[in-house]
Amino acid sequence: MNENIQNMIQSKARKAKSAMRVLSRSSADIRNNTLLVMAENILKSKKEIQEVNQTDLQNGEKTGLEKPLMQRLLLDDKKIDRMADNLRQVAALPDPIGEVISMGERPNGLKIGTVRVPIGVVGVIYESRPDVTVEVSALCIKSGNGVILRGGSEAIHSNTILARILSDTAAKEGVPEAIQFVDTIDRQAVYELIRLPDYVDLVIPRGSNEFVQFLMKESDIPVLGHADGICHIYVDEAADLDMANNLCMNAKVGYKVAVCNSVETLLIHEAVAEDYLPKICNNLQSEDVEIRGCERTQQIVTSAKPATEEDWKTEYLDYILSIRVVDSMDTAIDHIEMYGSHHSDAIITESYSASERFLKEVDSAAVYVNASTVFTDGYEFGLGAEVGISTQKLHSRGPMGLEGLTSYKYIIYGDGQVRE
Amino acid sequence: MNENIQNMIQSKARKAKSAMRVLSRSSADIRNNTLLVMAENILKSKKEIQEVNQTDLQNGEKTGLEKPLMQRLLLDDKKIDRMADNLRQVAALPDPIGEVISMGERPNGLKIGTVRVPIGVVGVIYESRPDVTVEVSALCIKSGNGVILRGGSEAIHSNTILARILSDTAAKEGVPEAIQFVDTIDRQAVYELIRLPDYVDLVIPRGSNEFVQFLMKESDIPVLGHADGICHIYVDEAADLDMANNLCMNAKVGYKVAVCNSVETLLIHEAVAEDYLPKICNNLQSEDVEIRGCERTQQIVTSAKPATEEDWKTEYLDYILSIRVVDSMDTAIDHIEMYGSHHSDAIITESYSASERFLKEVDSAAVYVNASTVFTDGYEFGLGAEVGISTQKLHSRGPMGLEGLTSYKYIIYGDGQVRE
Repeated sequence: MNENIQNMIQSKARKAKSAMRVLSRSSADIRNNTLLVMAENILKSKKEIQEVNQTDLQNGEKTGLEKPLMQRLLLDDKKIDRMADNLRQVAALPDPIGEVISMGERPNGLKIGTVRVPIGVVGVIYESRPDVTVEVSALCIKSGNGVILRGGSEAIHSNTILARILSDTAAKEGVPEAIQFVDTIDRQAVYELIRLPDYVDLVIPRGSNEFVQFLMKESDIPVLGHADGICHIYVDEAADLDMANNLCMNAKVGYKVAVCNSVETLLIHEAVAEDYLPKICNNLQSEDVEIRGCERTQQIVTSAKPATEEDWKTEYLDYILSIRVVDSMDTAIDHIEMYGSHHSDAIITESYSASERFLKEVDSAAVYVNASTVFTDGYEFGLGAEVGISTQKLHSRGPMGLEGLTSYKYIIYGDGQVRE
Repeated sequence: MNENIQNMIQSKARKAKSAMRVLSRSSADIRNNTLLVMAENILKSKKEIQEVNQTDLQNGEKTGLEKPLMQRLLLDDKKIDRMADNLRQVAALPDPIGEVISMGERPNGLKIGTVRVPIGVVGVIYESRPDVTVEVSALCIKSGNGVILRGGSEAIHSNTILARILSDTAAKEGVPEAIQFVDTIDRQAVYELIRLPDYVDLVIPRGSNEFVQFLMKESDIPVLGHADGICHIYVDEAADLDMANNLCMNAKVGYKVAVCNSVETLLIHEAVAEDYLPKICNNLQSEDVEIRGCERTQQIVTSAKPATEEDWKTEYLDYILSIRVVDSMDTAIDHIEMYGSHHSDAIITESYSASERFLKEVDSAAVYVNASTVFTDGYEFGLGAEVGISTQKLHSRGPMGLEGLTSYKYIIYGDGQVRE
């Protein structure tokens, strides 16, 4: 154990906690203006950011970082412009803090209400994409939270300069020390962070399922993150098969393959299986997607490999799709309940009653009718941005935006009431 | 380790989870009607309940249970009537399930909304009061959650008969197995319960601070409970001193002494200390309350014992009050921030700006102006009843009623949208 790292993390956590009190008194104008100046300063430093980003990219090439990760790492003009846009968009969202959620008068004259407040200090642990540094900082400042950022080692140089620009701006604009960046790649920093319940109120990990599970088990602080994204599309007997084809293709390969909301298992009602399966499998295979099917799928599509029990439980994040033919929607819902991860699941149907039953009975963070599962995302859901996607049912579920970064308190206005 | 207990708890958890699916499809009519029939059946069994309650009371006398606990254990006519009333009141509350919390249309035509859903299966661990068995069951059934009840050993006979009446009624009225009662007093049952994240979604403990902390540390399942209730009243320089007297007396001895929302520390602005302190201390001492004061308090009230650093951190739950004279509201707020438990804190003042600053800057579950802290309670707050009080900031804060027992899911209505 390195005591320097321990002291460093404790010091950052303490600073974020004191900053929180300043933040909680700050006006929305100050917080919004801070975000707007951050946008300007990032654009002004574009060249400097891109020079530093080159260091990460060169290191990535040396260490043989995979192509998708290299793409996520790259900060081209477009991405830096988008970061600035993102800051401005979050600034333009309604202020979540101070909103009176409810207010009523009790028979004894007490006026009791709830008002929205920041959670406090949020620790965010993330990988490769340096844009996350900006997006998460924007959401935390806007919602009045102190934030401790812990990015991935492959983006350490890019993240460091971005965090410096953001926290320098925050200091100048009146919310000093609210953004704390952990500039060591030593993993010990993460272990120290999750041991500080007196300073940190919530840990949000963005990373592999194993990593999130590990944090949940080890952390002394509540962890809100998502486990697997084993997402299903159920093609109902009343489905529009052309639409089903479009949506399945989009949810598997049309957006991105290695994202949590892409589809991993297709469930097809037996009434349409013979019509639908040959076509969709052909389209998928022409995009190099491997098909693993149940016995009935294999009978219809002879090129399909057999799907094992393990396949139904697997988040491939890859060019693989498992397919099962089911005899009813009940079987489809049972399958989703048994093997799914309660992330995003869709039905494709023209039947009103089937759509309503699916929406009611499937217990997932996002339940879709006739749309692609890959829409599960803070921006797409209209939250402006997201700090992550929660597959838990407590506090925040699905994409977590500003509201997910708030709590509430009861405020009570009396005029001398006592309780008998 | 006793394998029978392990099997028993696992079996109950599995049953509660299957029941949950039936519950989640049940109509509000079925759930409300179940509560109304439970009320009838409890009244019908009044004599039988009271006979069984005698066994617990006799055991309590034998084991020398303290008087307040004996009072909490006793089920007289009034308490049984109140249980039935409670069931009817919860039945009369609006149905929390299925409420569409938000719904809007995105530029691409997707209709995205959030709808309120049950959490799933809730494990509740509680002590002495058999009324809790009824109150918690009512809230869980109403909100569509399966519940596993684990009451205290001193009330085991009373709880067993109440749980039997409730779960027999639930079975007959269409929500079978939703209420699972743990009828062993072996502590191992609790350890087994918190190890079943696949079946139990939330653990709510009602008990000592140490017990709650222990569960939070050990549990594999999210735990929502309250830590200490170190509650403050700050008597501002602009306070109405008669009101201050009434409220402090009520918050210390007027309601109950051994409850989490009673006041433990009085903070008094120096401008009113000489006027106010002698009178309030006199009144408190005539009710046998021991005063422990800071130096300035001791100068004004010579009978006060010295308060140590430890006193400011202590939840007495007893006839003791610590008092500190402060030079400003800032010092009072700093004191509350440093020593308080963020449960319930009050300011007494006639100053508008002082009241608004206190409400904004004190970060507690319930922040009061000119009212007694002992109102922090689900019934008093208009929630109908409560499963507990949360001093955490995530998910539910303050008294947890029906809404605290719900989550939400996103529902998305599309007509073929794909993501580019």
